[in-house]
Amino acid sequence: MTPRIVAAWYARMIALYDIPNSGNCAKVRLMLSLLGLEHELRPIDYVKGELASPAHRARNPFGQVPVLVDGDLTLRDSQAICLYLAKRYGKGGWLPEDAPAFGRVMQWVSFSANEIANGPSRARGIKAGRIAGDLGAAQALALRALGLMDQHLAARLWLETGRATVADVVCYPYTKVAAEGDVPLDRFANVTAWHGRVEALPGFVAF
Amino acid sequence: MTPRIVAAWYARMIALYDIPNSGNCAKVRLMLSLLGLEHELRPIDYVKGELASPAHRARNPFGQVPVLVDGDLTLRDSQAICLYLAKRYGKGGWLPEDAPAFGRVMQWVSFSANEIANGPSRARGIKAGRIAGDLGAAQALALRALGLMDQHLAARLWLETGRATVADVVCYPYTKVAAEGDVPLDRFANVTAWHGRVEALPGFVAF
Repeated sequence: MTPRIVAAWYARMIALYDIPNSGNCAKVRLMLSLLGLEHELRPIDYVKGELASPAHRARNPFGQVPVLVDGDLTLRDSQAICLYLAKRYGKGGWLPEDAPAFGRVMQWVSFSANEIANGPSRARGIKAGRIAGDLGAAQALALRALGLMDQHLAARLWLETGRATVADVVCYPYTKVAAEGDVPLDRFANVTAWHGRVEALPGFVAF
Repeated sequence: MTPRIVAAWYARMIALYDIPNSGNCAKVRLMLSLLGLEHELRPIDYVKGELASPAHRARNPFGQVPVLVDGDLTLRDSQAICLYLAKRYGKGGWLPEDAPAFGRVMQWVSFSANEIANGPSRARGIKAGRIAGDLGAAQALALRALGLMDQHLAARLWLETGRATVADVVCYPYTKVAAEGDVPLDRFANVTAWHGRVEALPGFVAF
């Protein structure tokens, strides 16, 4: 097979187990779309308890979405999936191969898995009644995280390396909808300007 | 310069801003030692408030350790630092370059940044009075995380790829000291057996 046919074959095989309202799934939908990868969305009905079903547990013992299937690979975790897609299909731009640049990008992937997950994402989930927890504590973490991001973006167009990378992709969805957790974005002008730049990328899809 | 001299020059330049009792710093000390990289430990006195000092804030606006300095690169975040070291110095084994294997390893790096940080690490910090929070909730998350890990390790020697990788390194310290957060390890025999395998690696250093 030619590389083009191989690429098309892989693209056809990509399936995403998805919940439309999940910011973690939105990261993967955004990465897939920015990379121009055809894929099939397979909706999971969490209201009907499908996350805990034996079929879904077989895909992901953690009982969560997103789950990506690409050929014989099944991956869980939004960060791991976006990193995999960026590495496999991103031609070295969405995930740099130079070790220092790679390390810098990974700082913000961790920021997404830790500060954003425990801040704006958690505040949004508590506010919507989907998860239990201390709304005020999550909001305080969200404000701190957004402040650090805003300060970092004061002199930069993108989080690292001077172009959009997987770091921008995974940090976008939950910071964009911070207001849904009663975390106002108006004092973070650099973050909202960066949101605008992400939204202007070719292939952008809204959360 | 020959590659050996270049490598020695880089090795001499590695410095780690460190707190001995921090599991996040322990991940980096372990990664450095397993890779056989000479480095200088620069202790940070958090009791004296050094994390919030202007000098440390200049290194890391987040006011945290670990911070690694390698030549002109300054990196924060234990996961990002270990990934950087594995990619730069690990000769493709500690962090696979094959995209599917890389994605699988990254699932457990995220697990360290999320489930382990919010579970055993958080329970330990609350128990010691270093952070505020709900000890019972952190312990419940810790038990769930250790259960998922134990199940995963039932038929595996290492978390992914059949050999020790950066995933094993970043998941080791806080799971090893789970009992310090009153999270007993006795029901997780696969995890404790895996701890033993990590401890038998050439270059292992205890937390």
